[in-house]
Amino acid sequence: MKILYLNGPNLNLLGQREPQVYGRATLAEIEARVRAQAKKRKVVVDFRQSNLEGQLVSWIQEAKGKWDVIVLNAAAYTHTSIALRDAIAAAGVPTIEIHLSNVHAREDFRHKSLIAPVCLGQILGFGAESYLLALEAAVNVNKS
Amino acid sequence: MKILYLNGPNLNLLGQREPQVYGRATLAEIEARVRAQAKKRKVVVDFRQSNLEGQLVSWIQEAKGKWDVIVLNAAAYTHTSIALRDAIAAAGVPTIEIHLSNVHAREDFRHKSLIAPVCLGQILGFGAESYLLALEAAVNVNKS
Amino acid sequence: MKILYLNGPNLNLLGQREPQVYGRATLAEIEARVRAQAKKRKVVVDFRQSNLEGQLVSWIQEAKGKWDVIVLNAAAYTHTSIALRDAIAAAGVPTIEIHLSNVHAREDFRHKSLIAPVCLGQILGFGAESYLLALEAAVNVNKS
Amino acid sequence: MKILYLNGPNLNLLGQREPQVYGRATLAEIEARVRAQAKKRKVVVDFRQSNLEGQLVSWIQEAKGKWDVIVLNAAAYTHTSIALRDAIAAAGVPTIEIHLSNVHAREDFRHKSLIAPVCLGQILGFGAESYLLALEAAVNVNKS
Amino acid sequence: MKILYLNGPNLNLLGQREPQVYGRATLAEIEARVRAQAKKRKVVVDFRQSNLEGQLVSWIQEAKGKWDVIVLNAAAYTHTSIALRDAIAAAGVPTIEIHLSNVHAREDFRHKSLIAPVCLGQILGFGAESYLLALEAAVNVNKS
Amino acid sequence: MKILYLNGPNLNLLGQREPQVYGRATLAEIEARVRAQAKKRKVVVDFRQSNLEGQLVSWIQEAKGKWDVIVLNAAAYTHTSIALRDAIAAAGVPTIEIHLSNVHAREDFRHKSLIAPVCLGQILGFGAESYLLALEAAVNVNKS
Amino acid sequence: MKILYLNGPNLNLLGQREPQVYGRATLAEIEARVRAQAKKRKVVVDFRQSNLEGQLVSWIQEAKGKWDVIVLNAAAYTHTSIALRDAIAAAGVPTIEIHLSNVHAREDFRHKSLIAPVCLGQILGFGAESYLLALEAAVNVNKS
Amino acid sequence: MKILYLNGPNLNLLGQREPQVYGRATLAEIEARVRAQAKKRKVVVDFRQSNLEGQLVSWIQEAKGKWDVIVLNAAAYTHTSIALRDAIAAAGVPTIEIHLSNVHAREDFRHKSLIAPVCLGQILGFGAESYLLALEAAVNVNKS
Amino acid sequence: MKILYLNGPNLNLLGQREPQVYGRATLAEIEARVRAQAKKRKVVVDFRQSNLEGQLVSWIQEAKGKWDVIVLNAAAYTHTSIALRDAIAAAGVPTIEIHLSNVHAREDFRHKSLIAPVCLGQILGFGAESYLLALEAAVNVNKS
Amino acid sequence: MKILYLNGPNLNLLGQREPQVYGRATLAEIEARVRAQAKKRKVVVDFRQSNLEGQLVSWIQEAKGKWDVIVLNAAAYTHTSIALRDAIAAAGVPTIEIHLSNVHAREDFRHKSLIAPVCLGQILGFGAESYLLALEAAVNVNKS
Amino acid sequence: MKILYLNGPNLNLLGQREPQVYGRATLAEIEARVRAQAKKRKVVVDFRQSNLEGQLVSWIQEAKGKWDVIVLNAAAYTHTSIALRDAIAAAGVPTIEIHLSNVHAREDFRHKSLIAPVCLGQILGFGAESYLLALEAAVNVNKS
Amino acid sequence: MKILYLNGPNLNLLGQREPQVYGRATLAEIEARVRAQAKKRKVVVDFRQSNLEGQLVSWIQEAKGKWDVIVLNAAAYTHTSIALRDAIAAAGVPTIEIHLSNVHAREDFRHKSLIAPVCLGQILGFGAESYLLALEAAVNVNKS
Repeated sequence: MKILYLNGPNLNLLGQREPQVYGRATLAEIEARVRAQAKKRKVVVDFRQSNLEGQLVSWIQEAKGKWDVIVLNAAAYTHTSIALRDAIAAAGVPTIEIHLSNVHAREDFRHKSLIAPVCLGQILGFGAESYLLALEAAVNVNKS
Repeated sequence: MKILYLNGPNLNLLGQREPQVYGRATLAEIEARVRAQAKKRKVVVDFRQSNLEGQLVSWIQEAKGKWDVIVLNAAAYTHTSIALRDAIAAAGVPTIEIHLSNVHAREDFRHKSLIAPVCLGQILGFGAESYLLALEAAVNVNKS
Repeated sequence: MKILYLNGPNLNLLGQREPQVYGRATLAEIEARVRAQAKKRKVVVDFRQSNLEGQLVSWIQEAKGKWDVIVLNAAAYTHTSIALRDAIAAAGVPTIEIHLSNVHAREDFRHKSLIAPVCLGQILGFGAESYLLALEAAVNVNKS
Repeated sequence: MKILYLNGPNLNLLGQREPQVYGRATLAEIEARVRAQAKKRKVVVDFRQSNLEGQLVSWIQEAKGKWDVIVLNAAAYTHTSIALRDAIAAAGVPTIEIHLSNVHAREDFRHKSLIAPVCLGQILGFGAESYLLALEAAVNVNKS
Repeated sequence: MKILYLNGPNLNLLGQREPQVYGRATLAEIEARVRAQAKKRKVVVDFRQSNLEGQLVSWIQEAKGKWDVIVLNAAAYTHTSIALRDAIAAAGVPTIEIHLSNVHAREDFRHKSLIAPVCLGQILGFGAESYLLALEAAVNVNKS
Repeated sequence: MKILYLNGPNLNLLGQREPQVYGRATLAEIEARVRAQAKKRKVVVDFRQSNLEGQLVSWIQEAKGKWDVIVLNAAAYTHTSIALRDAIAAAGVPTIEIHLSNVHAREDFRHKSLIAPVCLGQILGFGAESYLLALEAAVNVNKS
Repeated sequence: MKILYLNGPNLNLLGQREPQVYGRATLAEIEARVRAQAKKRKVVVDFRQSNLEGQLVSWIQEAKGKWDVIVLNAAAYTHTSIALRDAIAAAGVPTIEIHLSNVHAREDFRHKSLIAPVCLGQILGFGAESYLLALEAAVNVNKS
Repeated sequence: MKILYLNGPNLNLLGQREPQVYGRATLAEIEARVRAQAKKRKVVVDFRQSNLEGQLVSWIQEAKGKWDVIVLNAAAYTHTSIALRDAIAAAGVPTIEIHLSNVHAREDFRHKSLIAPVCLGQILGFGAESYLLALEAAVNVNKS
Repeated sequence: MKILYLNGPNLNLLGQREPQVYGRATLAEIEARVRAQAKKRKVVVDFRQSNLEGQLVSWIQEAKGKWDVIVLNAAAYTHTSIALRDAIAAAGVPTIEIHLSNVHAREDFRHKSLIAPVCLGQILGFGAESYLLALEAAVNVNKS
Repeated sequence: MKILYLNGPNLNLLGQREPQVYGRATLAEIEARVRAQAKKRKVVVDFRQSNLEGQLVSWIQEAKGKWDVIVLNAAAYTHTSIALRDAIAAAGVPTIEIHLSNVHAREDFRHKSLIAPVCLGQILGFGAESYLLALEAAVNVNKS
Repeated sequence: MKILYLNGPNLNLLGQREPQVYGRATLAEIEARVRAQAKKRKVVVDFRQSNLEGQLVSWIQEAKGKWDVIVLNAAAYTHTSIALRDAIAAAGVPTIEIHLSNVHAREDFRHKSLIAPVCLGQILGFGAESYLLALEAAVNVNKS
Repeated sequence: MKILYLNGPNLNLLGQREPQVYGRATLAEIEARVRAQAKKRKVVVDFRQSNLEGQLVSWIQEAKGKWDVIVLNAAAYTHTSIALRDAIAAAGVPTIEIHLSNVHAREDFRHKSLIAPVCLGQILGFGAESYLLALEAAVNVNKS
């Protein structure tokens, strides 16, 4: 099984960016935890980050036929990008939307996800743990 | 560790109710899967369902000091009950909101959760698997 | 043929409650008229009232496989209860929504029915006559 | 007793127009069923259709003092015509609003009726049966 | 003179629930203060709490002809219950709406009271003192 | 100088239609008063009424080059007809919008006039007097 | 008969203020025309202007029992002042709302008049002529 | 192949009506250009105009089984007529919506087309050329 | 203890202004009742009224350090004045908002108070009694 | 004559992406059809695609003075990109907006085009044919 | 060059009013800094404050022909006063809108400025520095 | 002191792009003026432009610890980019938002800035002068 982790804008700053909201783990540390657990579950993972909406769109497109599941933390683009939504629908790879923080406890403009309706499911609010839960979700949903 | 699972209105009909939306597992089957995994994780669980908003409010209140985490599938009350929201905030027990279906891919009135802002996090769209992921989330978030 | 009449909150006060809006007939008198006409049409009826949203939800659930049609005057819950809506959809028993008064000639918040989209049809504004018309509707629609 | 049935735009196409929504009966067949039942109830009926908003307005005006009840399926004009609303209020003939389909289960713009607040009551969602129920309603409401 | 105090969901948790918002007095302590002052004013009082919307509806209904004034802290149901509103209008007992906290200084969804338009008046924001002011209001308004 | 008076739907019922709102004068009586005053002011007038939106559109179109001013009581079409608005803009004849009643003291849907932005001015709320004031307005504005 | 003309903020600048919108006549010139016509109609008039909302409120209050009609060009306060509205309702002197320009052809925030529902009628868009038409309206409405 | 061109209210004024918006060609000139090109494409066309909503509804109804494609410039009715929408859906003849002007660059109320969702496609903003492009579209789409 | 009573626009008309809404007591009579009760409670009071928003702002500013509590009936400015809100926040004197009538049972624009969020509490709907209850509230809240 | 075709995000997936919505033709096939027809019309064309909003902005900017017309299928950016809108306005090259599908028959968020007001016209809903019609439109509009 | 500084309601309390929002400088201190810098730039300044909307309106009116630039901190009136807006437009003196705090980081009702559209520009969020930057802006913009 | 100037999409076209809105100065000319003044103030500046949202995000991220202040003209992205907002909040470098034009005097969609709440302040409407005022603001705010 192969899972592609995609991270959107500003997630490269994790650890230093508003740690009271996003936690103190860096993206590299989260990646390490994901890779460790993936190894245990015998899952191949890749882990990428981009600040460019169009780059994320391209990665999702290219996942078609190559990856079994996408785990997507689209960050700010969650709320503004119809292009990401269309890419997910077009690629047809089951996609799990995740967020570090509980977006519903924050500003109003973070409550609406444009990509949620075309994703398989959503996991949010558990900090770095959201990434690992998504791995479990991907493995188990794929099984059944 | 002790986790209280609470299920809202109409979830007693699972398995027979719109299976294309909610899946074919009955609530009893989901409970069995939760109990099995809880045993593995050495977690005490209870599992309850009510169609009464006020009963759910009371169970949440009584959880204070007795349960470490509440996993709450509030079903229809998710979108209409400020009383549940107030109960969660008042009880102060970390609460994980779950849904079987991807509510964001359904009717507009299911997109807004009144309880999400006072919950720890949200897991939705993975069918019965949402219940098990919540158990993992509870165990791991409690650890860290 | 079997028809279950369910009445929501405050309908137990009929006759004394704002008679210029709801008429002077008590719920018992309406029940008597319904039972008389049901006898003529050779229809089995039951007639219940509750102020509890959850109790109405349970009655709708239990109707499955036991009653051919539900006639539902959900009163105030018409406008606030997604739980009733879900129960109707889950139970799958054809349901006719009725109201004594013409809700569209009253306050704005009474114009929107959350249950209408999952009901078979709606009859409203004819006072106690709405209950009898629903019986005719149930009998005739069932025939065709 | 005299009842005037008025039918709005596109109802002349019944039977061939989206039969999964409006049923397979033609307007002529519905008229025949209405006339048959009217005969039984010793009620005089007339039955008209027009695609012109202004024609419907004129028919409603002329009903004053000549007809006891109007049964009105205003079709699309239900949602856009204040002129029809004013005509009903001006003529003062008790008017029953009917619809073949359950308009609340369809597009948003069909949920709001501009004429409902000035009608006696509403019957909708029972197909051709809605026309007959309106006759019963007219007869019985007139009696009491 | 007889005054019925009704308390809505989660008010049984007073004292331990978000004391910075609701104060440190328990509901029992507030009840004691109300009973003491009622004695001075020679007023009979009863004091009840329920988490069930339908129970509150029933208590309001039963107050008719038995109690002179209802003092109602409907808590979360203030903002969601048309059933309570209908009960107040139906019972016809003068009702005073109270709140411990200044609801207008809190979340948007607490700014709208569905019951206010059918109440006599509103007293809010004075903590436990709101209960005593309502007693004074009831006594004095009754006099004039 | 030539002034064309156009009257919209239901105005043919004036005098008998909700006299507490529209007054007791019939349209014929208003026409007589207008003709009398027009004679004094040496103004040629015509006075027409139609329930058909399209007929009103056509009359406005035909006014081009033949009439100096249109006085238009569009009644219900005031609030729903973009076709009338376009006709006024297309014909280019200065148009004065009038209403018998104070539409701003009535239902919300009567507060918005679609034709006002393309009219010269508005006179409303003076009953039949509105028609005569419009004549004065037309004469005097034309002079300056 | 006695008519009080009240003018709101910035109307003292007429003639120099955006003449393409408000015309070239100064307020003094308009006053002169009003006084001339009042003389012909044997009407006593006074003519005042203030930039202060509270001053206008006081003048309206003081009109009670002293003036037969108020003609009010509230200018910007038309759209923001509930105090003016309450003053008109409290004073009970029939009030005619006027505007120089066609406010409906301008910015959105000028379309809503807070005072219109408590005024007798509205005359707008005829420039200085609006003031004279209001005088005619006052005289004639008073007569009938 | 047979194409029916239908034109809504005020289009009979083309050429003289706000030429900076609608161009200088008259409807007759546009018809001539359409007929010329239709001849080249060996297409039968008819070309009609009406100010009456109901007349347009009737023409659309009658097109069923007689015309292959309708090209509809509904003008003002585009934004207000559910009756036209229902007629298009009922007739089932593929319909192309056209406009002379770019409606999206004009007033807000022209941005929403009620008929667009039931049309095949939309061509707008090219002046008289929109009519000819629709002919090409009809011919080519029919081919494939 | 010192309490400053401030009254907003049109309250000087009490007694004669819409007595069915505001009661028959004049502001002077209310002042007398307040002064009598203040004497009993050994409280110094002053009692002022102004139609000028800016005057009310200044009085609130000057209260700083001189008065313990402000009781404010801002009347119409309640719904439109951010300046009053800012003054209350700036002065820092605990302020109690009162109203004679139940504003929530009146027009929509009276439901929103701009000053409520910066006041201590709200008392409304008890007529002149609201003024005396505010005195009790001020005394008791100050004590605790 | 020179026409620049620009294609936005996800259009590189045409043919495999939701073919029931977008058709089975690949972007390369559409390009071939466009080039063939361009040859016939003696028009120079270029044909580009990018998933990057900023790249599309740059291409539009560079078109200034080099291309006569832009044909733009902005896909998802149609609904979210003010940057594209500004680029079109800044470059001043006549731009034709096209879409493969009838966006008005799809999700609400696809009904609003941010770029439409600054484009020459819109052609949508004809599948690949939309591209060819735009070429005809460009050629003919340029001629006149 | 002559610059008139106008300050709206509550700005006389600067220094003591919510210093975490508005800073610790008093209005007198800010005036001193402005006068010092004005001297350096050889600019004549005046500096005024009023709590009265109408006074500010009058000062703006009187500035016409006497002052080159107005610097206006309208405080709370920024968001509610159309009268100020009209005064600025009527006087025609270039006006710079300033605020001490970043109004966009505060309550929603402070985000909308009614006067911004008729001002030259806006400077906000720099505390007392906003006043000095406005002076620079006035000097430099005047130069070019 | 070091200030980083960032310019968003289409600003590379300044001078040729709608000069009546944005002025005639090119971005290079503005840069030259900024550099000249920076030299006088002994400030290090850099000046960059990109049409790519993600590039701007990256530049803001990289500014952390290297630049004292960012001056950001985000152009169209001001109104659509949550990613820029998050970058500013994450980088923690004080940021001044500027605009050439008075955005509040233009289209509605330009009135809302998503980045304003996380910026230090805003300067807008002074054309190229906005850039120089921001430099002054940065220098002076930094001093205090």
